[in-house]
Amino acid sequence: MHDLVRRLYPLCRSITGDGLRRTLEIIGASIPLEITEVPTGTEVLDWTIPREWNIRDAYIKDATGRRVVDFQDSNLHVVGYSGPVEATMSLAELRPHLHTLPDQPGLVPYRTSYYAETWGFCLSQRTLDGLGEGPYEVRIDSTLADGHLTYGEHVIPGRSSAEVLISCHVCHPSLANDNLAGVAVAVALAQRLTDPWYTYRFVFAPGTIGAIAWLGLNRGRADRIKHGVTMACAGDDGTIHYKRSRRGDAEIDQVFAHVLKDRPHTLLDFSPYGYDERQYCSPGFNLPVGSLTRTPYGSYPEYHTSADNPDFVRPEAMEDTLEVLWAAVQVLEGNRRFQNLSPYGEPQLGRRGLYGSLGGRSDTKQAQMAMLWVLNLSDGTHSLLQIAERSSLPFEALAEAAHVLQSAGLVKEWIG
Amino acid sequence: MHDLVRRLYPLCRSITGDGLRRTLEIIGASIPLEITEVPTGTEVLDWTIPREWNIRDAYIKDATGRRVVDFQDSNLHVVGYSGPVEATMSLAELRPHLHTLPDQPGLVPYRTSYYAETWGFCLSQRTLDGLGEGPYEVRIDSTLADGHLTYGEHVIPGRSSAEVLISCHVCHPSLANDNLAGVAVAVALAQRLTDPWYTYRFVFAPGTIGAIAWLGLNRGRADRIKHGVTMACAGDDGTIHYKRSRRGDAEIDQVFAHVLKDRPHTLLDFSPYGYDERQYCSPGFNLPVGSLTRTPYGSYPEYHTSADNPDFVRPEAMEDTLEVLWAAVQVLEGNRRFQNLSPYGEPQLGRRGLYGSLGGRSDTKQAQMAMLWVLNLSDGTHSLLQIAERSSLPFEALAEAAHVLQSAGLVKEWIG
Amino acid sequence: MHDLVRRLYPLCRSITGDGLRRTLEIIGASIPLEITEVPTGTEVLDWTIPREWNIRDAYIKDATGRRVVDFQDSNLHVVGYSGPVEATMSLAELRPHLHTLPDQPGLVPYRTSYYAETWGFCLSQRTLDGLGEGPYEVRIDSTLADGHLTYGEHVIPGRSSAEVLISCHVCHPSLANDNLAGVAVAVALAQRLTDPWYTYRFVFAPGTIGAIAWLGLNRGRADRIKHGVTMACAGDDGTIHYKRSRRGDAEIDQVFAHVLKDRPHTLLDFSPYGYDERQYCSPGFNLPVGSLTRTPYGSYPEYHTSADNPDFVRPEAMEDTLEVLWAAVQVLEGNRRFQNLSPYGEPQLGRRGLYGSLGGRSDTKQAQMAMLWVLNLSDGTHSLLQIAERSSLPFEALAEAAHVLQSAGLVKEWIG
Repeated sequence: MHDLVRRLYPLCRSITGDGLRRTLEIIGASIPLEITEVPTGTEVLDWTIPREWNIRDAYIKDATGRRVVDFQDSNLHVVGYSGPVEATMSLAELRPHLHTLPDQPGLVPYRTSYYAETWGFCLSQRTLDGLGEGPYEVRIDSTLADGHLTYGEHVIPGRSSAEVLISCHVCHPSLANDNLAGVAVAVALAQRLTDPWYTYRFVFAPGTIGAIAWLGLNRGRADRIKHGVTMACAGDDGTIHYKRSRRGDAEIDQVFAHVLKDRPHTLLDFSPYGYDERQYCSPGFNLPVGSLTRTPYGSYPEYHTSADNPDFVRPEAMEDTLEVLWAAVQVLEGNRRFQNLSPYGEPQLGRRGLYGSLGGRSDTKQAQMAMLWVLNLSDGTHSLLQIAERSSLPFEALAEAAHVLQSAGLVKEWIG
Repeated sequence: MHDLVRRLYPLCRSITGDGLRRTLEIIGASIPLEITEVPTGTEVLDWTIPREWNIRDAYIKDATGRRVVDFQDSNLHVVGYSGPVEATMSLAELRPHLHTLPDQPGLVPYRTSYYAETWGFCLSQRTLDGLGEGPYEVRIDSTLADGHLTYGEHVIPGRSSAEVLISCHVCHPSLANDNLAGVAVAVALAQRLTDPWYTYRFVFAPGTIGAIAWLGLNRGRADRIKHGVTMACAGDDGTIHYKRSRRGDAEIDQVFAHVLKDRPHTLLDFSPYGYDERQYCSPGFNLPVGSLTRTPYGSYPEYHTSADNPDFVRPEAMEDTLEVLWAAVQVLEGNRRFQNLSPYGEPQLGRRGLYGSLGGRSDTKQAQMAMLWVLNLSDGTHSLLQIAERSSLPFEALAEAAHVLQSAGLVKEWIG
Repeated sequence: MHDLVRRLYPLCRSITGDGLRRTLEIIGASIPLEITEVPTGTEVLDWTIPREWNIRDAYIKDATGRRVVDFQDSNLHVVGYSGPVEATMSLAELRPHLHTLPDQPGLVPYRTSYYAETWGFCLSQRTLDGLGEGPYEVRIDSTLADGHLTYGEHVIPGRSSAEVLISCHVCHPSLANDNLAGVAVAVALAQRLTDPWYTYRFVFAPGTIGAIAWLGLNRGRADRIKHGVTMACAGDDGTIHYKRSRRGDAEIDQVFAHVLKDRPHTLLDFSPYGYDERQYCSPGFNLPVGSLTRTPYGSYPEYHTSADNPDFVRPEAMEDTLEVLWAAVQVLEGNRRFQNLSPYGEPQLGRRGLYGSLGGRSDTKQAQMAMLWVLNLSDGTHSLLQIAERSSLPFEALAEAAHVLQSAGLVKEWIG
């Protein structure tokens, strides 16, 4: 996963453009992607696809010809969607176009201006403090022209047409935790999944406008999404945070609460800010989509700065995030409802070889308790996960018990 | 407000009579009152309007002709609704008609006997201890005769015919906190309210029988009351108490819980005792009427004694009660439900000038968050107050956001 | 009660057989029982009535002819349902048939093997440790033959045909707390109950198969059971435990929570293990049956060992269990719903002599508050028990208030 982060890191991504396309190509080398190109001007929900932005070079040169701010060093140096500029100006004239982080004087901020035409540079406060009056040669070699917004999808067909959505934003340039780490974890999940029950849809799209484009183009089919999660900030060494869907008690919310129960974690209530769960959970769609991160957006000092580089992302942290996601997928996959076919009294497990024959002992095995719980609550209203919560038994033990009982003809899957 | 308390204090109020009428006259000088006179014998719900009581003088004179207990000193000295008496008797004969507070030997208690014909005097234990064997000349110059029960209403018409009820009992004689302070705060609220959305109905009626009379005469229209509160004990220096309506989760209950959240307060569950919320919340009406007091009835030593005088009532306390009531009214007035007209994905706030154009910053303004919350939860099931509770944003910020979004055509008021 | 425990203790009970019959005869001498004999081979729900087991003698004799393990000393020495054996064998050959408690070396365990044909002896680890190589003469003089499973019922007819079930397992041989104490408490309750509102059904049946037989033979009538409890482990000196029914909020669950509130106790959530509530609460029946014990099964060291003898059972503990059960029955009997016939405003209690005539006092009597609460909440949705919970008044005060109000024609029983 860390290799993928390093490979993607240098590309200058934005909500459109060739950096985004190249990113999807690299992801596509690991897991095949179906690419959608949405033309500039297309109306998607309340929005319109903007012009496509591409940039080749940008710099501020001092009088000696030295590039004091250089896009070639880091694509963060240019405000995203800056229009072309070629001018000579004093520091005073340039100043309104310069963005710094006075409280973090060594770091370069990440700034964009997608929908208000402007241009600008981002630099460290220290660099700014070292600049003389000028004049400076200022150049941004970019184009804003009709083109496309690009997103990619990877679908793993399941036995059911019901879908699980894993959505990652792919519009941030050289920022590693936000969100190359999320992308890498999603790719690793896709590679690990084989023959699932659900159909898994991985969406790699620019934040906000990309999710809106996907929703707009799939509006009539969005209700196929039965569970979902946005993935971001998946590689820092903070604790796992799961933010509930707008519904608050969706099955995906129950699943993450369950798999996180025995490890350090924080559960957050939904709020209409953060990542693209904002869009999936807008009231018209109200999809059961939560958000999985380690430290949430805005809550670590490296967030949206040049310090969010590949060294900030720890391989073990990404591995850990993947394990949580994998555990959630396992519960989701196994979380069925069953119908007890012998609901009047307990069925006689003993004659089916499912119960110890020697009575009177005070220790009862977990497997036996799991069977009794599955039988007792398999009335169509309780999923295995709900039985796990009520019984305090491990989900796996209940899933195994359900399997054994199904083989014995004592329960069948509930068709609800 | 304190002036009004002092002005009303000396009057000998009861559930009927001229003291009550004069009280309503004085209130009416501040806010116009519509007066209703209900004749003796009228059946109201399960009750019958009693005879009207009026009293001119009352005393106990010792052998020297000195008034040892004198109605002219304090109207508390006579048990309310005492019939006329003119007799000479020994202390032993008089004793069953004397009421004191042995545990508070310096104070005169407040006692009434509306529905069992009797007579009596209230005096301090100290006075009683100083009395010799007698004989005493005992006189109560009162009349119990067919007449009327009087109550007053002040209505501030709103844009909606839905009503908010503010109800104060006005039957207690020289007791200041209970309930002249409540009356004064209600009057002040009425004077402050202009052009409200709701219609506000202020009822100044005798306790129990007055509220029952009002309910009886307005039985078919009681369901116009959409929110309400009884006001009492509004001027002592204890903390604010709000007692929930019988429903327990009525909007008025939510509103007071919200406005009291950030200040010392106590929320009480409904009980069928206290003030006229007992009647409004009887199961046949079950109106959403709570009760706002500072220290509740019976919980302060001055309660129903001669120590509940105008000095016991503090102007700042009444001011504070008014502020709480005003805050509640503001929330009530602004607590609407909206419908997001662009519910699929977030609407593009930026092109409407409602969203900062520079992306990437980690600080998000409250106004922006308020807009996102209103948009996300404006699905007809959430009021602004519920959005405030869920978002932990101030109600005012959400009300303002809703206003801005309505102006932008993004939401419209929900017609439920 | 303790006498009954001592009388029943020596009998060799099992899920069938003459020890069980004799037990029911002895109970029947205190409270008349209707006996049901279910023939071997009868299919009941998912089960089949097994062959009847009877045993006359059993022993292990050493070479000197001394009985080193002797059924005549304690019926625990033989594994329940052991088939007949007559053999001479070495300790090594015998060993797989011997059951001990290595952690409690002085005690004899209780073991059964109802549904897997085998035989065995239970003995203390100390006895086992003292045994030489043998040979031993091993004898079990038992029969396993077609016969019957026996259970007994005692019914106290009530004014209503709705039933309260008290169920005790009676299949354990010489174990006192589990469950002769439960039987004794149930018998004492039956003797105390006279002219109840509900019909009370006491079922004394073997564990599991007995309850299943009863349910199978009463399948179409099981829904007459409106409340129920299994009684077990009723005499140890641990605190009372009430285990909720599968429903979790059944009236019986509310009743026990209420009566236990003011004493040390533990409330347990339902689990599909324990006593015959497992069967009554199977999902097809889902009867509102909880379980009342002192220390629950498996949680005291004497459980299912020879130390669970009559001395382990304390008379005061059984008395205490009976008091809890009696209190629950009293609440159940009195827990009605009423309809306020004068629901608009408070009815005038004073003119009916139900309210003190002197107003203004700050102390209010419990009886008066109870009347106000019953009037306020008698709208068909609140039972007296729910009013007790909401008002924090004693159930008895509310039941008395309801009675008084009913006599005054102010409420009538709700026919729901």
